[in-house]
Amino acid sequence: MMGCVVQVAVCGPASATDAELTHARRVGELLAERGVTVLCGGGGGVMAAVAAGARSRDGLVIGVRPDDGTSPGPVADVSAVVVTNMGQARNAILVWSADAVIAIGGSWGTLSEVALALRRGGIPVVVLGGWRITDATGAPLDGPTYVDTPDQAVRRAL
Amino acid sequence: MMGCVVQVAVCGPASATDAELTHARRVGELLAERGVTVLCGGGGGVMAAVAAGARSRDGLVIGVRPDDGTSPGPVADVSAVVVTNMGQARNAILVWSADAVIAIGGSWGTLSEVALALRRGGIPVVVLGGWRITDATGAPLDGPTYVDTPDQAVRRAL
Amino acid sequence: MMGCVVQVAVCGPASATDAELTHARRVGELLAERGVTVLCGGGGGVMAAVAAGARSRDGLVIGVRPDDGTSPGPVADVSAVVVTNMGQARNAILVWSADAVIAIGGSWGTLSEVALALRRGGIPVVVLGGWRITDATGAPLDGPTYVDTPDQAVRRAL
Amino acid sequence: MMGCVVQVAVCGPASATDAELTHARRVGELLAERGVTVLCGGGGGVMAAVAAGARSRDGLVIGVRPDDGTSPGPVADVSAVVVTNMGQARNAILVWSADAVIAIGGSWGTLSEVALALRRGGIPVVVLGGWRITDATGAPLDGPTYVDTPDQAVRRAL
Repeated sequence: MMGCVVQVAVCGPASATDAELTHARRVGELLAERGVTVLCGGGGGVMAAVAAGARSRDGLVIGVRPDDGTSPGPVADVSAVVVTNMGQARNAILVWSADAVIAIGGSWGTLSEVALALRRGGIPVVVLGGWRITDATGAPLDGPTYVDTPDQAVRRAL
Repeated sequence: MMGCVVQVAVCGPASATDAELTHARRVGELLAERGVTVLCGGGGGVMAAVAAGARSRDGLVIGVRPDDGTSPGPVADVSAVVVTNMGQARNAILVWSADAVIAIGGSWGTLSEVALALRRGGIPVVVLGGWRITDATGAPLDGPTYVDTPDQAVRRAL
Repeated sequence: MMGCVVQVAVCGPASATDAELTHARRVGELLAERGVTVLCGGGGGVMAAVAAGARSRDGLVIGVRPDDGTSPGPVADVSAVVVTNMGQARNAILVWSADAVIAIGGSWGTLSEVALALRRGGIPVVVLGGWRITDATGAPLDGPTYVDTPDQAVRRAL
Repeated sequence: MMGCVVQVAVCGPASATDAELTHARRVGELLAERGVTVLCGGGGGVMAAVAAGARSRDGLVIGVRPDDGTSPGPVADVSAVVVTNMGQARNAILVWSADAVIAIGGSWGTLSEVALALRRGGIPVVVLGGWRITDATGAPLDGPTYVDTPDQAVRRAL
């Protein structure tokens, strides 16, 4: 995004499985090791796990929060926080700020980020263990790249 | 929404099939006949068709546009227009303003509206001839109500 | 805005003086009598007064609310409501949707609407009894049109 | 903001005087020397100058841009960029993300940031060489802290 800095948004549910959290942490590590800035939603679950992974490798992590910054509950360990106070409209900001989007796990919020990223177009949208989208006949749709491991996710994103 | 006025957001692609346009127009007619205010994206395709249907029955139609109001191209025939200048973040506004959401046809923008509506929760989200969402194993997800006709769509929304 | 419909945003504080409320109601009446659609913030005070005035003349009033639609407290009597869930970022939406802006009375939120309207440019921005802005030396700035009566406000806006 | 990281938004026009640019650069230096993260609008003028100042002291600078990231023209030299694609509605995001706001120089966009910050309340809002706001009688309003030097600005902000 803008010059030589690469920024990847990593999206996923606040309520995540252990496997999803492990994946998210590993994605954060791999991105930070490659000098990539991680954007996340600034909350718990996948958001906190990817932040922790990136920070463990001295990566830069920007949390883009939906609330007004006063919500209780888990907050990702971020280098800086952008407080949108715009609810899930912040998902559009995450997507616009990213050179690639990686979605880990499934939730309606995460799906909206995948959809907004594909609506924007022009950037890789990688889904790791998340939901599937088909047309009305059940046929898969072009757009998302489905992968099974953090290594594949990061490779396809960059 | 706020008192006795019912507002239904009708979403769908700017590039739509003839069947989708016919469906959208009929949904607009049915909603207006019931005194329901129609919210749409203010653009062409499904957005223009639902607006035309509602207006043909003297319905109130609010177009919530993503651009700054100066874009060329088809514009829905609306009673009033809200110009968000926020791109697809306006999808979140459509969803928050509605007592129910009806999606007609499939597109990434439309999918984002379905996802944002289900993320919000608490309102009917009806999909007429649009895309399907499953979990990673291909199992359908609770949330959207899939229907085949405009009559079913309106009945399930209200 | 978009064709022949004219839309005017009328802004002002939720906590208003009696004179401001009287002015707002009269502005609403005058706009509706001219077939102009009124946009307001959907809350109490000036917002409710302009809505009441316009509705008393069978005018169309769109309330563009900052919250998620569940806030307690006064709500303007509107024809339709757009729920942005974006806090005061909705002020930018009001401004972008309007062919002219009339500010009645002073508050920081109202001032932000005046400033955003002048930042956008190209539309009349009329201030009725509200705050003044000067440069660092105290000299008045071009941009706002200051007026003393509802009649002047509406005449300068249209 | 959220824990021990302090974030200060520095606002000002893209078209700035030499004195404003010098002030902005110095404010950036002073903030970075104190370990404060600088938020700015990501554009030219004051935005670029404060970014350059902070970066010259190894500070963290987040640019929160109004456009979709593809605009030509000057871009602040930032550590990370958040692309809102929301026009001047991003001013609300800058304000919500900050523990204090410093405005340098005057413009309608800058004034909207001052107004939005005071509408939010609870944080210092410091104006260095910028516009003045009075009530309808010309009396100054409580809220902004007017200062003359970068040192005063940073001292009052923190």
